[in-house]
Amino acid sequence: MRNLTEGREQFAALLTRPLPTDVSSSATTLGGRPALELRIEAPGTAGEDVLLYLHGGGFVVGSARVTAHLTVALLRHLDGRAVSLDYRLAPEHPFPAAPDDCLAAYRELLDSGADPRRLVIAGDSAGAALAVVTMMRARDAGLPMPAAAVLFSPAVDLTLSGASMRSKDGVDPIFTPADLEWYFDQYIAGGDRSTPEASPVFADLTGLPPLLIQVGSSELLLDDAVRLAGRAGIDEVTVTLEVAPRQPHVFHHGESAEAAAALERAGRFLALRLRGRKEGS
Amino acid sequence: MRNLTEGREQFAALLTRPLPTDVSSSATTLGGRPALELRIEAPGTAGEDVLLYLHGGGFVVGSARVTAHLTVALLRHLDGRAVSLDYRLAPEHPFPAAPDDCLAAYRELLDSGADPRRLVIAGDSAGAALAVVTMMRARDAGLPMPAAAVLFSPAVDLTLSGASMRSKDGVDPIFTPADLEWYFDQYIAGGDRSTPEASPVFADLTGLPPLLIQVGSSELLLDDAVRLAGRAGIDEVTVTLEVAPRQPHVFHHGESAEAAAALERAGRFLALRLRGRKEGS
Repeated sequence: MRNLTEGREQFAALLTRPLPTDVSSSATTLGGRPALELRIEAPGTAGEDVLLYLHGGGFVVGSARVTAHLTVALLRHLDGRAVSLDYRLAPEHPFPAAPDDCLAAYRELLDSGADPRRLVIAGDSAGAALAVVTMMRARDAGLPMPAAAVLFSPAVDLTLSGASMRSKDGVDPIFTPADLEWYFDQYIAGGDRSTPEASPVFADLTGLPPLLIQVGSSELLLDDAVRLAGRAGIDEVTVTLEVAPRQPHVFHHGESAEAAAALERAGRFLALRLRGRKEGS
Repeated sequence: MRNLTEGREQFAALLTRPLPTDVSSSATTLGGRPALELRIEAPGTAGEDVLLYLHGGGFVVGSARVTAHLTVALLRHLDGRAVSLDYRLAPEHPFPAAPDDCLAAYRELLDSGADPRRLVIAGDSAGAALAVVTMMRARDAGLPMPAAAVLFSPAVDLTLSGASMRSKDGVDPIFTPADLEWYFDQYIAGGDRSTPEASPVFADLTGLPPLLIQVGSSELLLDDAVRLAGRAGIDEVTVTLEVAPRQPHVFHHGESAEAAAALERAGRFLALRLRGRKEGS
């Protein structure tokens, strides 16, 4: 990316969709950062559920608005509101600016009265990594955990050590390993790429709430998702991993049946964890 | 196990449950081996669905009858019958006797008119490995794939190379690595432990149908399940991995809520694949 402003505009132009007519959005702030609050204007949506959404974009591009359609797809399964955070981006604000913003946002949600049993977190790609790191940091700070988290194509290993970084090189229709390297360079800015708060595939995930991880099999980042599930399992976390064959990175953005089905399952997963255990949960 | 006969009797005594009163069982043969045919006596169960079940027991112990309650739990979601195979056991009949029996059984089901779109496979532990190997061999023989497969705590790496073989040593309430070593020794009988048909975690899984893998986080074999899911993903297979925290090997045998919930999800997974895609599938 030669020109950051241009790159961010292109990313936004590529992915942003009009908001559905039944969705109201408003600018707010959370943890000192701008955020987008989303509500669905329909009966049964004025409850106390809160979805904290963390957008993707390699820690460098993207915004709450760009991924609002993903946030809304999940929000449709909740009874309440979503808040999608515009955390600080690299390279202007390298690690740990984004995790700091995300933890501040999480803390403010709790401080302002959100019930952690009615709070869930979701994110895609870099945002999914930030979701994991936010929960780790909240745990370490003695804050209560949210009820559940959904992670779309998490980018959780800045060292690029997953097996799929080789086996899916040339298969991944979006990234080369060099592309990822570039994004992660901006973020880590010469720091230690393997530090667990930057690469949570190496973290202790003990105490995290139930996780649903969804990933496409065509991704360089496939093995990030697989290893994160393995790490969660080792650490006694309830985790479900779903691999969608021949799907690219954050395929949820697409108009495909696979995208719709994955978002539907993810929304149901959150709803089930918010509403308590039901048959077959 | 000093005495095979005694070991098999103890294993059976530990796990076998009475058949529910609405279940009819009959002895049959399949692929030249004894098998147990199970049906549920209720309306809507006389259809053409077929579940081929492959029991666990480290390739050495176990039988169709011992795991019949797991088979029945899945069968309740189907419209048809289950056939659970008594494949040949080690050490009397080492690898590849069991895979040979399983492929012969699968082939006979097809030859006798079973519709592969209405055929599913399930297995636990060693039986889950045999389920994977049976599908690989069927694929290589040009046979059609079943509609789906469910794998409980698959034992798919005779080389014991998973990370959980160390991290869960002392946590696993059932096995030590030496226990597993003993079972696998009987089975492989000096052969190559890493051959994909003995250790399908090293296999090419291309072309396999959708898989649901369920594993407990307390298992030495946790990483077998995680790596099998990763391998399936690499090979473009639709795969879901569910890790149940603090659950032991094939926790489905227990009377716990976790066991009931996991079996319920597994049954629904099969039903959905048999009945075709529905909303959110």
